[in-house]
Amino acid sequence: MSRFLHERYANLVPYVPGEQPRERTYIKLNTNESPFPPSPRAIEAAKREAERLQLYSDPTAKKLNESFAALLGVGTDEVMATNGSDEILNFAFMAFCGKDRPAVFPNITYGFYRVFADLHGIPFTEVPLNKDFSVDVDGLCQKKGTVFLANPNAPTGTALSVREIERILNAHPNDVVVIDEAYVDFGAETCVPLIRRYENLLVTQTFSKSRSMAGARLGFGIAQAPLIADLQAIRNSTNPYNVNRMTMAAGIGAIEDEAQTKKNCEIIIKNREFCTHALRNYGFEVVPSQANFLFAKHPKIGGKALYLALRERGILVRHFETPLLKDYNRITVGSADEVNALLAAIQMILEENK
Amino acid sequence: MSRFLHERYANLVPYVPGEQPRERTYIKLNTNESPFPPSPRAIEAAKREAERLQLYSDPTAKKLNESFAALLGVGTDEVMATNGSDEILNFAFMAFCGKDRPAVFPNITYGFYRVFADLHGIPFTEVPLNKDFSVDVDGLCQKKGTVFLANPNAPTGTALSVREIERILNAHPNDVVVIDEAYVDFGAETCVPLIRRYENLLVTQTFSKSRSMAGARLGFGIAQAPLIADLQAIRNSTNPYNVNRMTMAAGIGAIEDEAQTKKNCEIIIKNREFCTHALRNYGFEVVPSQANFLFAKHPKIGGKALYLALRERGILVRHFETPLLKDYNRITVGSADEVNALLAAIQMILEENK
Repeated sequence: MSRFLHERYANLVPYVPGEQPRERTYIKLNTNESPFPPSPRAIEAAKREAERLQLYSDPTAKKLNESFAALLGVGTDEVMATNGSDEILNFAFMAFCGKDRPAVFPNITYGFYRVFADLHGIPFTEVPLNKDFSVDVDGLCQKKGTVFLANPNAPTGTALSVREIERILNAHPNDVVVIDEAYVDFGAETCVPLIRRYENLLVTQTFSKSRSMAGARLGFGIAQAPLIADLQAIRNSTNPYNVNRMTMAAGIGAIEDEAQTKKNCEIIIKNREFCTHALRNYGFEVVPSQANFLFAKHPKIGGKALYLALRERGILVRHFETPLLKDYNRITVGSADEVNALLAAIQMILEENK
Repeated sequence: MSRFLHERYANLVPYVPGEQPRERTYIKLNTNESPFPPSPRAIEAAKREAERLQLYSDPTAKKLNESFAALLGVGTDEVMATNGSDEILNFAFMAFCGKDRPAVFPNITYGFYRVFADLHGIPFTEVPLNKDFSVDVDGLCQKKGTVFLANPNAPTGTALSVREIERILNAHPNDVVVIDEAYVDFGAETCVPLIRRYENLLVTQTFSKSRSMAGARLGFGIAQAPLIADLQAIRNSTNPYNVNRMTMAAGIGAIEDEAQTKKNCEIIIKNREFCTHALRNYGFEVVPSQANFLFAKHPKIGGKALYLALRERGILVRHFETPLLKDYNRITVGSADEVNALLAAIQMILEENK
């Protein structure tokens, strides 16, 4: 840090993304990417736009927003595309929180919420999860502030029902409730239909997971028009050309190929159930997941030791050093081949650690 | 705006980008895009990455940063890629300004500086330009705060020499001086070599103009390693995957084709001089430009009237309604054909307005 950095960032601890190693080829089960390529329509559309890069992208993202709004059955002024869903989350922290308006989120959740709050000097309350790693709905209802809730939650994979989320919305009539649905397509219920009835609901989604577009950076906010207008004002004061031409086109291509997305999600769900079952047979405690990853620990081998042993065998999973999480690993559910390779490696590691 | 938006944004007026019309085809001379396609190497590299979108982009942008650093002759830890140069400018406002540390910029300059300041609640001082639209160096030296200076300036096109910028740097030893070199490749002197001697210098550049990649969104910050580390901390607390895979690859492709960039810039400079000369022959007052645009007014026709008359003839230029700028238009210098079409249209409009 230089002597010029403003002192308000003195204690800022940036988010640390999962490693993206380049020195060798790993089976990557550490950042919840999709094992499937994006839709051929997405790829072709992106390639076409690569020829036209000399022109700015449409700062209103009109076609892309229309396309996604039609898929969701909401109005075009009720969606907004961003450079990944981290960007819409950042805008939400900026727009709806402040020194006088804290953020509220579970103590175990997407680690970026805490970073966003620190970045903008926003106080926050962390609500502990229940013992079974499920989200404490009553706890979230009781705390004052703007709620940020990943549903399914990360890195645990548990999901709340729409009915439980309605309780949170009703308990916070004067605060925005942000439901981060990055992983919703793998089996949880979406809250998007609730935007009709709740002016305080913002849903965020991403094309990084179910639509195999992590490397394209495309996220969305979905809410009633006034909330979207707030977020557009922030966007237009930050980076009006936030989504590039290729990603816009790829997004439209992916939306047109919803059947492919659904099929891929069904495969991941099947692989997840198979992997959960197998890990439990090996003695793992596996949190019931409705996402494309599993959160698991073994009574005989520590989280870090398992992470390192897998890494040595060419398989990357995500390990968090924080005390509440350190016994576990978060394991992305990949293709059937990847799941089989993971299980074979784990079997060998457990043999060696007997 | 909803009742949930934090009151600190009550008076926020977002930046308004130049229009990107879709209803008909215009000769677009309104957003300073390049008339040339990106390098074939950039296009091919982007297309290859479109096939791999399921994986996140490298959050360290290692290869891209190495490639650009080598071109500039600086260290890899002295450059940083962003989602367009608006993003690095936003990070600089966040990192190096505050309620207690104002921003300083000319009163006529890139309109976004004022928006960034307002967005983050940063007070700012505007230093009036000299009568000939050149930047008032003494004025910038005298005002306390973090300096933001577009060089060449926009929408005027005038440029300061490196020597004049050194005066500003020396006058602000305890503040960062940001030199926004979006248009530097069209004839101005770059300040990049100054980073060796000035720990308070941040240079920003973009691939949107000279490298024909406006639609890909790629910008850079260039500074000594400690300043870049500050900005990386902000980036990693905002959007660590800010640059997508396709843009990263296209950027490397464009850098490898520096000869093409240079050739395109030479054509634009030639067209600019031709267009300047022709407009002056038509009676226009044209500010001497070192950018890829001209700032011009005619004694017989108002700025808005000329903008509308050109628009009717299928040519878009940029008109600003603000009192200091309203007599002028900012006209992008395009291809020879575009320049000729512009001049023919202007000749007809002037005939009609005799």
